[in-house]
Amino acid sequence: MENPWKIAQQQFDRSAEILGLEEWLKLKLREPRRVIIVSVPVKMDDGTLKVFTGYRSQHNTARGPAKGGIRYHQDVTLDEVKALSMWMTWKCAVLNLPYGGGKGGIRCNPKTMSTGEIERLTRRYTSEIFDIIGPDKDIPAPDVNTDGQVMAWIMDTYSVLSGRNVPGVVTGKPLDLGGSEGRDAATGRGVYYTLLNYFRHKKQSINGKTVIIQGFGNAGRYAAMLLENIGLKIVGVSD
Amino acid sequence: MENPWKIAQQQFDRSAEILGLEEWLKLKLREPRRVIIVSVPVKMDDGTLKVFTGYRSQHNTARGPAKGGIRYHQDVTLDEVKALSMWMTWKCAVLNLPYGGGKGGIRCNPKTMSTGEIERLTRRYTSEIFDIIGPDKDIPAPDVNTDGQVMAWIMDTYSVLSGRNVPGVVTGKPLDLGGSEGRDAATGRGVYYTLLNYFRHKKQSINGKTVIIQGFGNAGRYAAMLLENIGLKIVGVSD
Amino acid sequence: MENPWKIAQQQFDRSAEILGLEEWLKLKLREPRRVIIVSVPVKMDDGTLKVFTGYRSQHNTARGPAKGGIRYHQDVTLDEVKALSMWMTWKCAVLNLPYGGGKGGIRCNPKTMSTGEIERLTRRYTSEIFDIIGPDKDIPAPDVNTDGQVMAWIMDTYSVLSGRNVPGVVTGKPLDLGGSEGRDAATGRGVYYTLLNYFRHKKQSINGKTVIIQGFGNAGRYAAMLLENIGLKIVGVSD
Amino acid sequence: MENPWKIAQQQFDRSAEILGLEEWLKLKLREPRRVIIVSVPVKMDDGTLKVFTGYRSQHNTARGPAKGGIRYHQDVTLDEVKALSMWMTWKCAVLNLPYGGGKGGIRCNPKTMSTGEIERLTRRYTSEIFDIIGPDKDIPAPDVNTDGQVMAWIMDTYSVLSGRNVPGVVTGKPLDLGGSEGRDAATGRGVYYTLLNYFRHKKQSINGKTVIIQGFGNAGRYAAMLLENIGLKIVGVSD
Amino acid sequence: MENPWKIAQQQFDRSAEILGLEEWLKLKLREPRRVIIVSVPVKMDDGTLKVFTGYRSQHNTARGPAKGGIRYHQDVTLDEVKALSMWMTWKCAVLNLPYGGGKGGIRCNPKTMSTGEIERLTRRYTSEIFDIIGPDKDIPAPDVNTDGQVMAWIMDTYSVLSGRNVPGVVTGKPLDLGGSEGRDAATGRGVYYTLLNYFRHKKQSINGKTVIIQGFGNAGRYAAMLLENIGLKIVGVSD
Amino acid sequence: MENPWKIAQQQFDRSAEILGLEEWLKLKLREPRRVIIVSVPVKMDDGTLKVFTGYRSQHNTARGPAKGGIRYHQDVTLDEVKALSMWMTWKCAVLNLPYGGGKGGIRCNPKTMSTGEIERLTRRYTSEIFDIIGPDKDIPAPDVNTDGQVMAWIMDTYSVLSGRNVPGVVTGKPLDLGGSEGRDAATGRGVYYTLLNYFRHKKQSINGKTVIIQGFGNAGRYAAMLLENIGLKIVGVSD
Repeated sequence: MENPWKIAQQQFDRSAEILGLEEWLKLKLREPRRVIIVSVPVKMDDGTLKVFTGYRSQHNTARGPAKGGIRYHQDVTLDEVKALSMWMTWKCAVLNLPYGGGKGGIRCNPKTMSTGEIERLTRRYTSEIFDIIGPDKDIPAPDVNTDGQVMAWIMDTYSVLSGRNVPGVVTGKPLDLGGSEGRDAATGRGVYYTLLNYFRHKKQSINGKTVIIQGFGNAGRYAAMLLENIGLKIVGVSD
Repeated sequence: MENPWKIAQQQFDRSAEILGLEEWLKLKLREPRRVIIVSVPVKMDDGTLKVFTGYRSQHNTARGPAKGGIRYHQDVTLDEVKALSMWMTWKCAVLNLPYGGGKGGIRCNPKTMSTGEIERLTRRYTSEIFDIIGPDKDIPAPDVNTDGQVMAWIMDTYSVLSGRNVPGVVTGKPLDLGGSEGRDAATGRGVYYTLLNYFRHKKQSINGKTVIIQGFGNAGRYAAMLLENIGLKIVGVSD
Repeated sequence: MENPWKIAQQQFDRSAEILGLEEWLKLKLREPRRVIIVSVPVKMDDGTLKVFTGYRSQHNTARGPAKGGIRYHQDVTLDEVKALSMWMTWKCAVLNLPYGGGKGGIRCNPKTMSTGEIERLTRRYTSEIFDIIGPDKDIPAPDVNTDGQVMAWIMDTYSVLSGRNVPGVVTGKPLDLGGSEGRDAATGRGVYYTLLNYFRHKKQSINGKTVIIQGFGNAGRYAAMLLENIGLKIVGVSD
Repeated sequence: MENPWKIAQQQFDRSAEILGLEEWLKLKLREPRRVIIVSVPVKMDDGTLKVFTGYRSQHNTARGPAKGGIRYHQDVTLDEVKALSMWMTWKCAVLNLPYGGGKGGIRCNPKTMSTGEIERLTRRYTSEIFDIIGPDKDIPAPDVNTDGQVMAWIMDTYSVLSGRNVPGVVTGKPLDLGGSEGRDAATGRGVYYTLLNYFRHKKQSINGKTVIIQGFGNAGRYAAMLLENIGLKIVGVSD
Repeated sequence: MENPWKIAQQQFDRSAEILGLEEWLKLKLREPRRVIIVSVPVKMDDGTLKVFTGYRSQHNTARGPAKGGIRYHQDVTLDEVKALSMWMTWKCAVLNLPYGGGKGGIRCNPKTMSTGEIERLTRRYTSEIFDIIGPDKDIPAPDVNTDGQVMAWIMDTYSVLSGRNVPGVVTGKPLDLGGSEGRDAATGRGVYYTLLNYFRHKKQSINGKTVIIQGFGNAGRYAAMLLENIGLKIVGVSD
Repeated sequence: MENPWKIAQQQFDRSAEILGLEEWLKLKLREPRRVIIVSVPVKMDDGTLKVFTGYRSQHNTARGPAKGGIRYHQDVTLDEVKALSMWMTWKCAVLNLPYGGGKGGIRCNPKTMSTGEIERLTRRYTSEIFDIIGPDKDIPAPDVNTDGQVMAWIMDTYSVLSGRNVPGVVTGKPLDLGGSEGRDAATGRGVYYTLLNYFRHKKQSINGKTVIIQGFGNAGRYAAMLLENIGLKIVGVSD
């Protein structure tokens, strides 16, 4: 597999040329503004200590605070996180959201860890990157292998360290702690609207189309429900 | 040349074995606590923009704020900075100073840059690492190609960003801004005391010894003066 | 009269048993998280000094900042304030508001004090509890013998101590300072909606019912007006 | 031309008498709460240094943070800025906005300065008044010879000095940085609504009226468009 | 045993009368300025949760930050802590130290707890009283059943919550973390100087006196050593 | 009397020419960096409100925090305060102290005011200039008609607003609050050393000289005592 950071930079170079970006702007956008690498010592349930490596990349904050997920995976690398943070800059800008691009990750295998170990990992990682995140600086979100529970731990650790309740430091929190409704279905809903807009743009009717869904997780499931609601027929599903 | 970080870790592993360090302590001390990599855009005198890469590594802060120089050199790498920050931890601990180990650097060739360019580079780099340095967090100092003038720029930028005068954020400041007297001669004085202690330890008299000095910069010059003051004869000098 | 804190804990114990709450949760919810007792010296209009005792109890903040009134009464006790703060936790949770439970009070008889004395009492009390209140920590409100004017003094003192305008530190402010419309009638409106929902739930029509109102203060007055508006007949009022 | 501050105070005295304001209130409202005068050194494009004088007056903050523009003009004086800040207090209060009155200015001729010089002037001025402005203290806006670009520089400088994104420190930002839509046309729209209300109040029909517009800048242009939209005839325009 | 707070107030009343203290001063000094009571939940080694009660009393801060120990004992009460904090005010004032009086405690039996349990208890208690302590507000120290290790945990927790190294938040730290030399022997040295001064005052020679020491802990041991050093004969010791 | 600011600038221009100061340096040093003018409303003992005008000028802070007194006098003007702050810059620099130059004042006649009125005046003035003073920004001291008591009020107000004890915000405090010993006699001691150095420089003996002292306040009294101590004869004194 090719290096994701190399891919991201090549994509950027091609786009920059097409857009005729000025030289100084190319130089500034080709590199992340700030990357932090932290050691995260965790006491495992068996009493031993393990030290994990965590990352947070802030690619660009010109349009607002950095925004982007935190993933827990044994193959996370600095270059992957850098690439993903660059892509977040573009995504937020394309949708005209007042956010820049960020992304983080911890090199670990959460499938082999207990809930207690993941909590201690999350809290210590949050404490180490505390100085550079915050509602007006950089706002994490769930990503591969992280969910509302992990966000709740980040929010709580950040709040304790701040000495006040700071729900705005993460998105994707549980609803009870101030999370947004509709977030679970959001990706599937995006598929749905994309299809609708595609056919509107093509000036074709969507009525009578049949649908095959590849992947039936968070995204596919909700897309299927929404498409069925407007009368389309789901003729196949795989997972 | 071998990778300095590999060297530093090998030295540590050997020492840890000799000391019989506990496993968890080895794991914590083998990696820097926190490393930051920043992009430093600088407007050059010819109107173009260059983006430099800057580093700051905080190896350990268990005994106090991180402490260590910032170097400007075209060959600076992340691994070099990490190794130097680990060595700073040991140096401070051996002398029982209430400091941990840090080190920073910017990948640039200051010999080819104007004073204005170096000032802008320094101020922007300081602004980018502002969140993680400070008198109670991490205190930079002069190193390869950086001097009191660079420290004055760091101190001023840090003070402006803090909204108050913060001379304690760097050591190695000019005397007029609160720098310590004797700092210029300190390394040479160290050579001098080391020699004195060596002969005291060997129970030999130092009287009548002759001295050859290799390198006549900041260190050699002051060592020569001090050794001559107690009656030794400098019989050779090279630079 | 029975000790209110004993009552509150007994209520909790019974509910916890019915709910089958886990042991650790019972232990955490049985006690207020934090209680502060302060001495409030006030220069009286006759030139003498009196020292009043003030309280603030934060029962629980797991769901958000503590929320609850501040009362001025000669019989206020620590146990009363603790009980009321626990009840605030339940009230906010039942309505799914993102707040925890708090309550405060000062042992004094405001009926015998001048406006100037009450202002000085309020400002000094605010200054003493400043460290533990705030829009993201604990938000006071009017209660027995305190009103919008007292909230304005708290807001002003808190803002001066914070060096910026902080209207969010209290609710129940005067409208001119950012208070919410409709607050005066809110309790009466609650009575009205409760009645409506009661009959809806009973599947009975409310038309033709007659109403007797016991107490014609802030609550009764507005309830009467609202119930009359939908055609009910107020046949009796007492105060 | 008469001194604007004398005019403002005379207007106030007359109004205060008509309103029968209490003496202590008159005394407090007759003077600005706080005025700051700063020296703003700027490196000009030709390498020389010029020192400009900047002002910021906060007339009153009892109803909320001070609010008011910053103007760049060679004739700006302390008394002009004080008068304008007093008028801002009345304007915000009359519209029942939760703001007090502020105004600032720099004595300079921006018509003779390059963009780079104006940027450096703006950033340094912002840095000097940083301590007394902010979203909860005093919020600048565009005024004579200052626009969205100048606000963007203020916002960026303030954000860098705060260590976080603070878009709320100014209004009148570019839309891309969080500015409000409709602000450009707002003054013209005000003229339009004033006229409409005037005739409604006089119980006259506006239909068939003809319009002459004196001044065709930001205000006049939009007023003309809006008045024409409802069928009025613009019979004359001057600039 | 009599209530210590009653004793302390009676002592004060008597002294105040002898000193002829003004009425307002008596009133202010008769009560602690601020007392905080916190719940401290701790996960015990057996997996269960226990909730301990912690106190911190700040009797007076007119002469500087509050100063006083933190004790861990199963009999600690609010009144005991209040009394001890009042006595700290007098002790600091008598020695003309720029400190006020404080004291804290946790109701627990540390003899039956593991090191891990005591660490978790200490860290959580510190976190709960964080808002009201600090090098310029209130500075804890070791007391009954607390030592340098406990102070190190407080210092570390406070530093993490502050985001910087704050050794000044406690005294009685381990020497390696910046503690003061001589603190262990300080109480015994006090006994020694008191005796010396006693005989100097009585104009008697101390030579040839014999010494009996009751209690041979931290105080008695060092007193014995120092008195023997000047030639006195220790004729009896009990423990 | 000539305008003091005009005098100060003329002195500076002459010195700058003699020193051959560069043009940009002259421009920066000819004007105070920052001046603040505040309205200080005070409730007088007779129940009426008076509004006083207060000033604080920070001439230069390049060498450290601004330093300089605060005077209370009915003739204080902005220009006087500006001039005095410039002179403080030179005084601190000549003695190589790490401070810049500041000065403040309030236009009032303290001889006609009660202690309570002066306290309220001082506290409100401190609150208004709070944002721009502090131990690392600008440090007031006693001056004409202000003394240790006024400094104590400033220190207390500043500490309350900071939420912690900040004795370093003023010099010239009462000894009990951390003031420096010897401050009262400092000016007289300066006269004494100046005389000694004058005769040493002239290579004349001081023995046998007679002394006439004009003015027998804080300065003259201590000078007289010190000069008499070394055997000189005071032959005349006036006040």
